[in-house]
Amino acid sequence: MAPGLSLLPVTGVPEIRPGDPLDQIMLPCLQGLAQAGDVLVLTHKVVSKAEGRVIDLTQITPSAWAHQWASRWGKDPRQIEVVLQESAAILRMEHGIIIARTRHGLVCANAGVDRSNSPGETVCCLPEDPDASARRLSQSWSQPLGFTLPVLISDSFGRAWRIGIVNVAIGVAAMDPFTDYRGQDDPHGYPLEASIMGSADALCSAAELVMGKTAGVPAALVRGFAWQAADKPGARQMIRPLEHDFFR
Amino acid sequence: MAPGLSLLPVTGVPEIRPGDPLDQIMLPCLQGLAQAGDVLVLTHKVVSKAEGRVIDLTQITPSAWAHQWASRWGKDPRQIEVVLQESAAILRMEHGIIIARTRHGLVCANAGVDRSNSPGETVCCLPEDPDASARRLSQSWSQPLGFTLPVLISDSFGRAWRIGIVNVAIGVAAMDPFTDYRGQDDPHGYPLEASIMGSADALCSAAELVMGKTAGVPAALVRGFAWQAADKPGARQMIRPLEHDFFR
Repeated sequence: MAPGLSLLPVTGVPEIRPGDPLDQIMLPCLQGLAQAGDVLVLTHKVVSKAEGRVIDLTQITPSAWAHQWASRWGKDPRQIEVVLQESAAILRMEHGIIIARTRHGLVCANAGVDRSNSPGETVCCLPEDPDASARRLSQSWSQPLGFTLPVLISDSFGRAWRIGIVNVAIGVAAMDPFTDYRGQDDPHGYPLEASIMGSADALCSAAELVMGKTAGVPAALVRGFAWQAADKPGARQMIRPLEHDFFR
Repeated sequence: MAPGLSLLPVTGVPEIRPGDPLDQIMLPCLQGLAQAGDVLVLTHKVVSKAEGRVIDLTQITPSAWAHQWASRWGKDPRQIEVVLQESAAILRMEHGIIIARTRHGLVCANAGVDRSNSPGETVCCLPEDPDASARRLSQSWSQPLGFTLPVLISDSFGRAWRIGIVNVAIGVAAMDPFTDYRGQDDPHGYPLEASIMGSADALCSAAELVMGKTAGVPAALVRGFAWQAADKPGARQMIRPLEHDFFR
């Protein structure tokens, strides 16, 4: 039998607060569980919270436009204001839905600003630089664990054409986010075309199956995936240049 | 520790030829491996081949337009002709790339027509009705296995906004393709919004990590995912109605 793949939920991670040293807090949860060769998938929420990317809505003064749009669609104008501030570009803004491009180049609903899993009158934004966050975590764990643990930071995105959100990698450290089959032949000797797999996204989608949204499991280890070591630029290279985007 | 998830490659499946009884051929590969609660992910290629959806290019007479376009972009005009025949609508056709909507409503490159993993002068098309194919397989295995084995038929699709293809579910039988968190609260008691996970797609993306493209592993079992039993319409309901598609 060919070797399989395992997904292990990382449990015991306490509620993370702004300024918490996430690497130190998570290390005991990884020690004794993580093995050389594993990949860690981590929901961005805990990274954002540790990095202070939680916005207190009571401190936000919405613009007139945010007020107008929020009242039309039954939204919180302060949250709309944060969404607009987090957006580099608005792609769609209708029927109460905002699809934005973030400063990172990510295209997602509400520029990644989310009230779920965020305490009280707050919203949670994406990390400032998720690739850098992933690198910091991976590097900080390298010595105490005794091996390199690639880190993927995930978020759940809606998609063109298909219903249902899936997890994608918004930050990647220490591994190549792609598996490139170009130049390889299939079993019939015919070259594989158009065959760059978005492995980091697939790993994040897989990890979601054990993390869930309500179970309080912010991370999962993937065991058995033959990742290729790679340094920068991480998840940033997964963003398709607009001029090459024929799928939208 | 919360329970994890395992992905087991299904090996020993021989090369499938048109008219082969796929259910009978695969049954011995599943017996002794599959367990109650598992989900089977199956690449569409073996389904398409068994169903005779392999087109002999030597029998295809390309239209003048297929000739013209193929010669401009260095493609095989016979293959272009098949792509056009398999398309319900062409969304983009430029720079040698065809993005089409298939009769199933799927949006993908080349209407799912693929030369890789197809022997000789042939191309492989998508199954006529992948949901029906998945149902037939799941139903045929139910009695000999002694339990219901949900079947997901997968293909690798390119995506808007992001580089890298990932597997999605084009056929689904015996399980709900979504995990619906709407109405549930997060750990802070705040209702989860916009939280319908495309679990069938995530399961297919995960399975790709053990199937690969070149390893000759056409299927994988997912163990440990708490799927919800559901009947029709399967993967068809994952297609986002155009009027609700704000992500493209």
